[in-house]
Amino acid sequence: MAAAELTAHQLIAQHRPTLDQALETIRTRAYWSPHPEHPKAYGESGSLGMAEGKAAFDALLGTRLDLGQPGTDDWVGGEVSPYGIELGVTYPHADIDVLLPTMRAGQRAWRDAGAEMRAVVCLEILKRISDRTHEFAHAVMHTSGQAFMMAFQAGGPHAQDRGLEAVAYAYVEQVRTPDTAEWTKPQGKREPLALNKQFTPVPRGIALLIGCNTFPTWNGYPGLFASLATGNAVLVKPHPRAVLPLALTVQVAREVLAEAGFDPNLVALTAERPGEGIAKTLATRPEIRIIDYTGSTAFGDWLEANARQAEVYTEKAGVNTVIVESTDNYKGMLSNLAFSLSLYSGQMCTTPQNLLIPRDGIRTEEGPKSYDEVVADLAKSVGGLLGDDARANALLGAIVNPDVKARLEAASGLGEVALASREIRNPEFPDAVVRTPVIVKLDGAKPDAEAAYMSECFGPVSFAVAVDSAEEAVELLRRTIRDKGAMTVGAYTTSQEVEQTVQEACLEECAQLSLNLTGGVYVNQTAAFSDFHGSGGNPAANAALCDGAFVANRFRVVEVRRQA
Amino acid sequence: MAAAELTAHQLIAQHRPTLDQALETIRTRAYWSPHPEHPKAYGESGSLGMAEGKAAFDALLGTRLDLGQPGTDDWVGGEVSPYGIELGVTYPHADIDVLLPTMRAGQRAWRDAGAEMRAVVCLEILKRISDRTHEFAHAVMHTSGQAFMMAFQAGGPHAQDRGLEAVAYAYVEQVRTPDTAEWTKPQGKREPLALNKQFTPVPRGIALLIGCNTFPTWNGYPGLFASLATGNAVLVKPHPRAVLPLALTVQVAREVLAEAGFDPNLVALTAERPGEGIAKTLATRPEIRIIDYTGSTAFGDWLEANARQAEVYTEKAGVNTVIVESTDNYKGMLSNLAFSLSLYSGQMCTTPQNLLIPRDGIRTEEGPKSYDEVVADLAKSVGGLLGDDARANALLGAIVNPDVKARLEAASGLGEVALASREIRNPEFPDAVVRTPVIVKLDGAKPDAEAAYMSECFGPVSFAVAVDSAEEAVELLRRTIRDKGAMTVGAYTTSQEVEQTVQEACLEECAQLSLNLTGGVYVNQTAAFSDFHGSGGNPAANAALCDGAFVANRFRVVEVRRQA
Repeated sequence: MAAAELTAHQLIAQHRPTLDQALETIRTRAYWSPHPEHPKAYGESGSLGMAEGKAAFDALLGTRLDLGQPGTDDWVGGEVSPYGIELGVTYPHADIDVLLPTMRAGQRAWRDAGAEMRAVVCLEILKRISDRTHEFAHAVMHTSGQAFMMAFQAGGPHAQDRGLEAVAYAYVEQVRTPDTAEWTKPQGKREPLALNKQFTPVPRGIALLIGCNTFPTWNGYPGLFASLATGNAVLVKPHPRAVLPLALTVQVAREVLAEAGFDPNLVALTAERPGEGIAKTLATRPEIRIIDYTGSTAFGDWLEANARQAEVYTEKAGVNTVIVESTDNYKGMLSNLAFSLSLYSGQMCTTPQNLLIPRDGIRTEEGPKSYDEVVADLAKSVGGLLGDDARANALLGAIVNPDVKARLEAASGLGEVALASREIRNPEFPDAVVRTPVIVKLDGAKPDAEAAYMSECFGPVSFAVAVDSAEEAVELLRRTIRDKGAMTVGAYTTSQEVEQTVQEACLEECAQLSLNLTGGVYVNQTAAFSDFHGSGGNPAANAALCDGAFVANRFRVVEVRRQA
Repeated sequence: MAAAELTAHQLIAQHRPTLDQALETIRTRAYWSPHPEHPKAYGESGSLGMAEGKAAFDALLGTRLDLGQPGTDDWVGGEVSPYGIELGVTYPHADIDVLLPTMRAGQRAWRDAGAEMRAVVCLEILKRISDRTHEFAHAVMHTSGQAFMMAFQAGGPHAQDRGLEAVAYAYVEQVRTPDTAEWTKPQGKREPLALNKQFTPVPRGIALLIGCNTFPTWNGYPGLFASLATGNAVLVKPHPRAVLPLALTVQVAREVLAEAGFDPNLVALTAERPGEGIAKTLATRPEIRIIDYTGSTAFGDWLEANARQAEVYTEKAGVNTVIVESTDNYKGMLSNLAFSLSLYSGQMCTTPQNLLIPRDGIRTEEGPKSYDEVVADLAKSVGGLLGDDARANALLGAIVNPDVKARLEAASGLGEVALASREIRNPEFPDAVVRTPVIVKLDGAKPDAEAAYMSECFGPVSFAVAVDSAEEAVELLRRTIRDKGAMTVGAYTTSQEVEQTVQEACLEECAQLSLNLTGGVYVNQTAAFSDFHGSGGNPAANAALCDGAFVANRFRVVEVRRQA
């Protein structure tokens, strides 16, 4: 192997301060990010500016993304942007029997490099991705259907934050045990027993990242970087509709690994043909010892049951609830909820679905509001937020796939429509499918309504569920979390007692709770280094981003002891 | 609930220094233990001395151990000591539908007590167990068949160390995230976004400990204390032949919990009738969210496949290997190996089974020794060690059950016997089944030999396997770890090259390695706070005692956030 262009010394000098700050922040959980959120912050010191990023993305269209991987038996691709354009990029399709052994070849050197070196190499990868944030933003936008600003932020700095957070957790977990120890046990009058001990974090094997359609980078980076930072090779199998952002990620990772003197095959991509379903084949290969997956409950459950040779981390479907019991900021509540329901057309795993509202109405600082008034006012608030087409496009993005569109269309048949979905024209991308959310009124007591609100209806659909009382709302919340899972729970209440009951329900059923949000923080958003994404303790996900449990079992520690 | 007799203040004042020392030691991995190993160290400051411990044990015989548990529908028992005496103790048999709900009742207060309070309550439980070490020693001896001194040390201070270690890991894992955080995100010229966040470690539910026959306390305490310290209730299902040590443990835990103002039902026992097999029923109950198990591979695999609602930690069978390639201390090597093979009649999960020896012999400081000489000298060394019946009894203990005896008897038919097993009379317990180990010579190249040495032959049986070369030995070691698992690996070599190869095999196949042990430390012994027991990365066990991964997923963190 050629001499490394990036030395450990350089990488540590450049990235150790960032790592240290990340380590500090996961302890304090205060606000911090090294990745600027504003598009204008890019374009200097080697990062691509707005126009350069767009040009870089445009230059990718219609090309073959040759990652230089061994075992490429074919080239596949066929992504069509939810905004209507065909990307025309082709990617390596792997001969797994060739690719997997080459991925193992570099693991020994990667293991021997140690936790700090692995961490700073990961940080260099993230730095170069950060420099290309504008390019990634277009890649995320045109695969997920997110609006540009959201693709930029959630697909760029926020995803990079989550990747860095995973590196920090992985690093600190590996250095809990020292590299060496001297152990001397007194034996009374006899000579003490003495041993020299060496402790080495070792990888489990090859990790498989199964990417998702809606947040390829944000949901992909934690697992990818947690596995890589703990010494594992990582095979990336993107969602067939969202290959480009992860392919670019693999490209950057391979480039940095090679420059730092490691085998670039430690990170590889395999794309698939439509309907090929290679995830099942990959997931049960004996070489694959870790799997990260975001997607349907059905396939997540399949992985947990069948990929028994691997540690499996899944984020699946859930039903997110907001209890609306009372508020001292009625307008703030409505506009906060309206934004949460509209953002990315409700296509976030954290978007509220069921709004539980007492059928006798709620107390507000403007006086009591009936159930019908609350729902009508919320519908008005959403309508107002999305009344201007330009703003609507900027907020909604596009419907990611035909399934979501079909669900949206079917939703209006489930009950009384409080707010009808509206088609919005996107002047820049006339083929984009853009729809405003639908709000459907349901009676919580009716069995046919329950069939609707107790299933995940992923997309811009929410249910205003009338309930008998706050107690019933909390009971329904508990049942929903326990049976269906939840990534988020929200509640609006001015009652200490109700707040306590909701909080206790979330503690016992294990769900993350946001209380009385009326400003610029939304229940569907979490911040790396501070907020946990999911709890790992209810059916929506078996892991949280990011905590000790997310990283601790991706490696093992081997001890070698010798007499001193 | 009555006012607590043990206040948080008292408990923290008394136990925080011990906890701090444990936290420090798991970082340095130097030698430390707060639990004295010498029997004479007990008998003052409230602990039972030798005679008192024996008297306490004798007083238990023939009694009903009433733990005051709700849902006791019957009393069961029938332990017969491997030393021949009938214990005659009966224990609660639970009506699970009554017991499990009562175990959940106390969880909220236990959760709200916080990580530090839970840790010091656990330390108080361990302190009281430590005070009764002499009593526990007899209980362990007369259920496991360990000799008294080993039952005293491994079943007493060493088990208590492992419990404390688990409490330390559990504590530090829970306090990685602060109780509260203030999060303020700048928004340029606008008001910053500000949130108050609360983080609460919450238990998964009820943990199930499935105890084993040979090391009821040593293998049981890590899981029990890790689960309890992370807020879970713990149901203990002991091995039907080794109920007493864990029943006494439950008794102490319930007593301390009650005195500290908590619900004693947070820890409960259920014994079973012979052949009842309640572990399967318990393990798949929805209330059971964590399982710790030590025992057969068949049932461990069953648990992993079927108890899908729970986190499952298993220690199963393995095949432990020692490579004998060369040494500069031939006598030291032989006597070290002889002790390792003899201790507790080879009934440790860490006892070496396969000794891989080049068929052309080995280099030693006494000159070359042929394969036959090495095996004969090892046989002589074992014979010498166990030549005196009193010493043999003190080292061997008793054969724990008829299965082990049957395997031992069958072993001599597997190849040429280098050392025949010998019956030893125990003058104090004439019904005890005491046998010296058998050493059988096998040719590593022969398929029928492979069938023998590639299976776990639990008990006082070891195989001297002739191999072609050091390279072949390492290759066989790799295959054994990969296919069968290993709790321990040993190697004797003076060659840097062979040492490197063995070490690399252990790093890649993930097994704990002891090199060139010739003194008073043995491959089958590990020390809490310093050595890992198992690696969690090969088929012998899916967890290591004790590390972050062993505790991190026993609880989850629930976040509640509010606008500041």
